[in-house]
Amino acid sequence: MINIEKNYYDLLQKISSYEEAVGLMYWDLRTGAPKKAVDQRSQAIGVLSTEIFQLKTSEEMNTYICELLNDEVKGQLSEKTLRSLAESKKEYDLFSKIPADEYKEYVILQSKAESVWEEAKDKSDYQLFAPYLKNIVEYTKKFIGYWGYNGNKYNTLLDQYEPGITVDVLDRVFGQLREYIVPLVKEISESPYQPKTDFLFKPFPKENQKLLSEFFLKEIGYDFEAGRLDETVHPFATTLNQGDVRVTTKYDETDFRTAIFGTIHECGHAVYEQNISEDLAGTNLSGGASMGIHESQSLFHENFIGRNYGFWKRYYSKLIDYSPEQFEEVSLDEFFEAINESKPSLIRIEADELTYPLHIMIRYEIEKALFNDELTVEELPEVWNQKYEEYLGITPPNDAKGVLQDVHWSGGSFGYFPSYALGYMYAAQLKQTILKDLPNYDELIENGHFSVIKEWLTKNIHQYGKMKQPLEILQDVTGEGLNVQYLINYLDEKYRALYKL
Amino acid sequence: MINIEKNYYDLLQKISSYEEAVGLMYWDLRTGAPKKAVDQRSQAIGVLSTEIFQLKTSEEMNTYICELLNDEVKGQLSEKTLRSLAESKKEYDLFSKIPADEYKEYVILQSKAESVWEEAKDKSDYQLFAPYLKNIVEYTKKFIGYWGYNGNKYNTLLDQYEPGITVDVLDRVFGQLREYIVPLVKEISESPYQPKTDFLFKPFPKENQKLLSEFFLKEIGYDFEAGRLDETVHPFATTLNQGDVRVTTKYDETDFRTAIFGTIHECGHAVYEQNISEDLAGTNLSGGASMGIHESQSLFHENFIGRNYGFWKRYYSKLIDYSPEQFEEVSLDEFFEAINESKPSLIRIEADELTYPLHIMIRYEIEKALFNDELTVEELPEVWNQKYEEYLGITPPNDAKGVLQDVHWSGGSFGYFPSYALGYMYAAQLKQTILKDLPNYDELIENGHFSVIKEWLTKNIHQYGKMKQPLEILQDVTGEGLNVQYLINYLDEKYRALYKL
Repeated sequence: MINIEKNYYDLLQKISSYEEAVGLMYWDLRTGAPKKAVDQRSQAIGVLSTEIFQLKTSEEMNTYICELLNDEVKGQLSEKTLRSLAESKKEYDLFSKIPADEYKEYVILQSKAESVWEEAKDKSDYQLFAPYLKNIVEYTKKFIGYWGYNGNKYNTLLDQYEPGITVDVLDRVFGQLREYIVPLVKEISESPYQPKTDFLFKPFPKENQKLLSEFFLKEIGYDFEAGRLDETVHPFATTLNQGDVRVTTKYDETDFRTAIFGTIHECGHAVYEQNISEDLAGTNLSGGASMGIHESQSLFHENFIGRNYGFWKRYYSKLIDYSPEQFEEVSLDEFFEAINESKPSLIRIEADELTYPLHIMIRYEIEKALFNDELTVEELPEVWNQKYEEYLGITPPNDAKGVLQDVHWSGGSFGYFPSYALGYMYAAQLKQTILKDLPNYDELIENGHFSVIKEWLTKNIHQYGKMKQPLEILQDVTGEGLNVQYLINYLDEKYRALYKL
Repeated sequence: MINIEKNYYDLLQKISSYEEAVGLMYWDLRTGAPKKAVDQRSQAIGVLSTEIFQLKTSEEMNTYICELLNDEVKGQLSEKTLRSLAESKKEYDLFSKIPADEYKEYVILQSKAESVWEEAKDKSDYQLFAPYLKNIVEYTKKFIGYWGYNGNKYNTLLDQYEPGITVDVLDRVFGQLREYIVPLVKEISESPYQPKTDFLFKPFPKENQKLLSEFFLKEIGYDFEAGRLDETVHPFATTLNQGDVRVTTKYDETDFRTAIFGTIHECGHAVYEQNISEDLAGTNLSGGASMGIHESQSLFHENFIGRNYGFWKRYYSKLIDYSPEQFEEVSLDEFFEAINESKPSLIRIEADELTYPLHIMIRYEIEKALFNDELTVEELPEVWNQKYEEYLGITPPNDAKGVLQDVHWSGGSFGYFPSYALGYMYAAQLKQTILKDLPNYDELIENGHFSVIKEWLTKNIHQYGKMKQPLEILQDVTGEGLNVQYLINYLDEKYRALYKL
């Protein structure tokens, strides 16, 4: 390794170490830090985050990028170093194009906006939040001016979360998906066959939910020697380092699904990060390929493992053991139908598999219109409500249950939402391919042979970390580009059977 | 505040933030990080610790110190800024006098020496550790050469832990203490009256020890909104920030004293840090005045609260509730005598109140001789064993239970041990003063009015953080310098009564 390459990797290790510290400080705040820790902890997080930003946009970083990507040197570099440099350069360009003062103002605005959003959501008062949102949108538009764009301004934002995905791609796949889902949702709501669900909401002791969450994590392949499970208000997975990928979950004693499916979802994120090649540790390639690929892994686990019929054939009796009264008169089939109920609802994070993509499309269309000056911040609530009525047949009774429900916009995360739906499409497409390699997939699950599935995912996806771009992974594994038909087929087969259509 | 002063405080805040991150990373490693986290975590701790060292010895820091301590500026500064600068200057001088290369070699040596020490202790093989210890002593001697010294070379080391304390002071107070303790230990061992202690080692359920530890912490005045209790192999207290001072304890099911008195000891450290003036947050003054003053607070809590007769008059029935079979036939007085048993023993951290100072004196005399070239590393085990025989009347059967028992020397912490004994003398001297202000001290404890005692300690000691030097605190509070007679009086009264001498 040439000397400057070594220095470059040292800098990446330094950034990784700072990120590990910040990650742990956040995790600790959410899992068990005492109340009075918060003020100074937030300050410490601010100091270290600023330092990370400075390291990523430092003259030192720029020097390494320029000197290593110099034509004479470039040819001697490994594929790994080249990919790493591409990532570093992307971040460097992104941040260094924004004047330092403007970026600082924007960061302050973000943190204010988030607390105002919280208050606005509590009071269901959009007018409180609107001026901040307007400001954030204005800043983002200005940044797009600095960054430039191809074809559509919104493409620049999409590229930050899901490289390779553009408005053209999304318009196509979302169009197909909408055309299929909307009529099916209507058919289902009119079906005379509706599952019984009342027992889902009977009390399930928290301690038992916890034991069951731990049990499922172990069964599915989460490595407890490289992680731990804790309780938080919002479940998440966080990577501190490759040997320390933690998950959290939430226990709702009157809806056990929150913990069980939440845990399995986060397990998917965590198993991904636990199985990235060790060779990438301490570099900027030691993470998931993209938000969408990450979500494909969590949704694969949640839906294609945790909602697989064989899974419950195997574990339903175990579930009954942990809450006998709740399920004593419920058959396996009744249980399975209940956990797969589909019904239009207002809140994205509570939506079922079938209606979930509609929630994403509404946000996508609104964001795209905002950044193409076809919609103003003032008009948002009205448009939001219209779209919910049009796609889901329901109208939010207030903005808290409508346009104010998600935190994302208060942090300026425009372009993020589509990756949730992309993850779902990726997952369905991967599932189709796994069925070719492992035609006995359902049996594997029914027999608890999750390690075979984990090995397949590791071999095809996890190990690469950020060594490959999202669409490169999709192409390499499935032999084709993004194809929404697999998701449509999956939903069609599943819901027609469930609702006897 | 002048501009450069503001920049100086910003740099201190930055250092504090890094220290908070490192503190949390250590705490997490010891309380619950998964096994595979360790390798990369250690690297991250190394990166951040190096950064802290660089900030403290940076050109930036030197500039602030020089410009603010300039005669024209100095007069305008607050007492707080002046104290803070004195601390910064002391650290800057200490580290910047050592050539960077030598310091780096030394840090690597330290970390190697600690793992070799662990192995040597496990195998009870001093020869394994000796070359490393020799090397560390050589480095330290070289550093003393850079730093300079007054009177005695060992004074330079003492000054790093307990400013103001010198060999002259220690020779005097340790001399007095030894002359008093050695004969009393002999008298006690020959006393026909010996307490019954067998019941101490009966099983006490861990879960109940935990509940009791939490209970005592709350009772004594530990603020759980600014801290938490966890379990570790070695108990400790750690300050992440002023609103987050954590304690840990260890549960031994066949000796409940480990957890109960360990928790009360750490409680003393933690209550100190929880009550430092908020005005000092984020500066280098937001910590205890010295190792000795810190230890005075932990020992005050452990011995003058937790081993007070009134304390157990109040709580013995509660203790019985948590382990009824163990204590059903033990009276309060029998219990109190048992927990205050005094008996020469080999291991410092297991020693009782009376013999503890002898363990410290032995280490002090050895360190002093080492740095004045009156003793070689090779001769250590022999001298150690001779002194244990001379002072305590027992000889270690092997080096694991002798010269290899403490971790301190492997980390180059020479000059640290005396602060344990100084803390004890400070505590007894403070106790004498508190009795003047609160003559009903014993009653306060018997009635659970710990807040009155906490307020006294906060008003006289805690609030100041590092605003005062250790001997300044002692003088301001007790009206005199270090006086070992108070400790002697306390021990005399207590042990003559207990052993009916």
